Amino acid sequence: MAQTSVIDPHSACPLCLSAGGQVLWRAERWRVVRVEDADYPGFCRVIWNAHVAEMTDLGPADRNELMHVVFTVESVLRDRLRPRKINLASLGNQVPHLHWHVIPRFEDDAHFPDAVWAARRREVRAPAVDAAALRQALADRFAATGAQEI
Amino acid sequence: MAQTSVIDPHSACPLCLSAGGQVLWRAERWRVVRVEDADYPGFCRVIWNAHVAEMTDLGPADRNELMHVVFTVESVLRDRLRPRKINLASLGNQVPHLHWHVIPRFEDDAHFPDAVWAARRREVRAPAVDAAALRQALADRFAATGAQEI
Repeated sequence: MAQTSVIDPHSACPLCLSAGGQVLWRAERWRVVRVEDADYPGFCRVIWNAHVAEMTDLGPADRNELMHVVFTVESVLRDRLRPRKINLASLGNQVPHLHWHVIPRFEDDAHFPDAVWAARRREVRAPAVDAAALRQALADRFAATGAQEI
Repeated sequence: MAQTSVIDPHSACPLCLSAGGQVLWRAERWRVVRVEDADYPGFCRVIWNAHVAEMTDLGPADRNELMHVVFTVESVLRDRLRPRKINLASLGNQVPHLHWHVIPRFEDDAHFPDAVWAARRREVRAPAVDAAALRQALADRFAATGAQEI
């Protein structure tokens, strides 16, 4: 009998293989990371830990949990950085593993008012973000909602 | 006494002044429109009717309601169009009136696998979408959840 070769479809997924950024908080089913992007030092991602492609691949309770985290990150970024706008996006065309971009935008950032995926409008030196303070602010918010860090 | 001139900050907002696309469903607090975009005939937007900028400007119940609509549109677009990926985004840098892009993506579309806001990768003639059937599918789903059309 011929042996069937089974290739794990997730073995090449960068969000299965690595954290995908500097981990700010890791819970059982999701994590929040800060993206290494010199233009956008406050750029965070909320990543669902399991390899799932679309929001509607999750059940309603999981969707709500994930969006609650996205909005918590939005709220903390607004409080700490006072951006002109928050950009939220779940795209996943290149990495179809559910992750939300949460991007604080400023009028003088590299692409404003365009999307960060558009052509750059200007060269910038974005001010540093205090990642430890950001992490603490998130920790305070998640601890208050009972999200366990693992 | 000098008269104070009050300028309505929303008077120039295109999503306050117009529907923002072909209306597929209008409820009391939100509407679903199909965007007029030849490259992306299935491109829909879910627009909060009131002039609010950020998701965290809404209370939790309103956020949940709006995301439920976004996910319903995602589900209907997946069922009907079988896209390779769904892209969800709330950006609002140019029009800071809360609206969600719900974009069915295909491997041979104009920008895949890049974001639709990136430089175009190819010229395409996207297949037409049956807007009436899309509207009916949404109507069936919203009617089932009790969302009243107005």
